[in-house]
Amino acid sequence: MLKKVHHIGIAVPGLEEGAAIWGANGIGLVEEGREDVTSAQTRVAMFPVGESRIELLEAMSEDSPVGRFLNNRGPGIHHICFEVDDIESEIERLRGLGLRVLGNPPTPGAHGSLVAFLHPKDTGGVLIELNQFPEASGNP
Amino acid sequence: MLKKVHHIGIAVPGLEEGAAIWGANGIGLVEEGREDVTSAQTRVAMFPVGESRIELLEAMSEDSPVGRFLNNRGPGIHHICFEVDDIESEIERLRGLGLRVLGNPPTPGAHGSLVAFLHPKDTGGVLIELNQFPEASGNP
Repeated sequence: MLKKVHHIGIAVPGLEEGAAIWGANGIGLVEEGREDVTSAQTRVAMFPVGESRIELLEAMSEDSPVGRFLNNRGPGIHHICFEVDDIESEIERLRGLGLRVLGNPPTPGAHGSLVAFLHPKDTGGVLIELNQFPEASGNP
Repeated sequence: MLKKVHHIGIAVPGLEEGAAIWGANGIGLVEEGREDVTSAQTRVAMFPVGESRIELLEAMSEDSPVGRFLNNRGPGIHHICFEVDDIESEIERLRGLGLRVLGNPPTPGAHGSLVAFLHPKDTGGVLIELNQFPEASGNP
């Protein structure tokens, strides 16, 4: 079961440029912190809003997933991440429906989380991330 | 100030096809209801998740905003809607920063809400909707 929108990932040419748009001097969100996700060659910045976050994504290399997205489509919304309680049973259920899951078993993400993606060709063009946190707290 | 993600709008070729992906027999959300927004030539279906919703968008005509999006980019994430307490002061603030606002003064939306959009060229390729509800309740 999907509990909530954990974050919405947005591809940006650079975090500084993105933070100028989304941050306190722009749309008005407050930046929570930055992180290099070297496994995905992506640099991220988080901006909480309600129970969710805007996650800005900067490519660390051109042939990273975000780099390819930027080259193909330009800056914009990249994915939606939903928090789940039990990612392994969720993956099993969705695979049983014929959806392709990227990350089975799920891969370690930030802060002890487990992460998997659903193939956008099976979800009407939407890249969906599933995320399970150790205490199902949804934070950070 | 943005309070929360009210919904994420997703363009689909048809609501039935979208509901098969997102609904109880697919990703697992429960549909809340459908509505024809004739002013935008769009048919919508809502799927609550946490404090937010997935809003599926079907074009009622090819030259509607959603119809043009589908023709240009294909199905996928169309916009993010944030709930605000005071949309008029928010519009004034954002216009003061040089962002173009579509809907000034804001236009009536569903359930007595007021709605405006920020031009995606000013927000790094992201179409942002702002939504104010009569009691700032966020529902529905």
